[in-house]
Amino acid sequence: MKEVKNQHRVKLVEMVKDVRICMLITQEKNDVNLSGRPMAINKIDEDGTMWFFTRASSYKVEEIEESKKVAIAIANENSQIYLMIHGTATIVSDKNKMLDLWSSILKTWFPLGLDDPDMTLLKVVPNEVEYWESSSSKMVVLFNMLKAFAYEDEYAEGEL
Amino acid sequence: MKEVKNQHRVKLVEMVKDVRICMLITQEKNDVNLSGRPMAINKIDEDGTMWFFTRASSYKVEEIEESKKVAIAIANENSQIYLMIHGTATIVSDKNKMLDLWSSILKTWFPLGLDDPDMTLLKVVPNEVEYWESSSSKMVVLFNMLKAFAYEDEYAEGEL
Repeated sequence: MKEVKNQHRVKLVEMVKDVRICMLITQEKNDVNLSGRPMAINKIDEDGTMWFFTRASSYKVEEIEESKKVAIAIANENSQIYLMIHGTATIVSDKNKMLDLWSSILKTWFPLGLDDPDMTLLKVVPNEVEYWESSSSKMVVLFNMLKAFAYEDEYAEGEL
Repeated sequence: MKEVKNQHRVKLVEMVKDVRICMLITQEKNDVNLSGRPMAINKIDEDGTMWFFTRASSYKVEEIEESKKVAIAIANENSQIYLMIHGTATIVSDKNKMLDLWSSILKTWFPLGLDDPDMTLLKVVPNEVEYWESSSSKMVVLFNMLKAFAYEDEYAEGEL
């Protein structure tokens, strides 16, 4: 199954690389409402792990500390990329990792740069990915096939 | 409050008019997982009500019949429109309304046209809207202000 697994990951990384902004969906603390906000994707690793810079004091960090289950919604008309990524989020406050991912464009959000004590990383590991193929015509967007793959299942199979 | 209410509605309609595809987020029937899929926005009325064509046999219709609470996520990099709309969904199987909203582009999804017995409408009435202003620069997307307005509160105030 390793080949399939890699193929899925390559497809995911290939799609997400064309996207800068996604909607990060979290569960509100009362576990009933969901909340969402646009986030700039800092990096996607080869294994599909996604990285975001955020503020440790933000409400979404509180939410993630209560429930690590998040979703990343991407509906990018321009590049015709339609993705729903279900994943597990972790708050990573490793300064070396921040240094590794830092680029000057981030000064827009963090004028203090890497010295900002409120800066932290959000790491999302995908468990399940759904994507919709669309026609290449800009006039007609046809979601003609839903493809879904579960990372978890693949891991399980790989471990057997 | 009527003036404020109208101002918000005008802003919402103005933003959504530039968007063709959104992600419709629903709660799965077990009430734990959320699911999402890209949907073409057929129309937004002047009061913010959004209309979609869909299949009566689709899973999302089942989900909506169990829980009418949905969210519409829009993160449109090209037009820099970032919106999170929380609303109430209803399945509307009124053939006259379908005729009213029908356009030939829908034949992509419904080759049988208005005679398709599986065709139905999904109506979403917004309760709460959040949007993020971004800079006009294509290089730096700055979510510099979150603005939120609650339709429900406004309605309540209007009714007092």
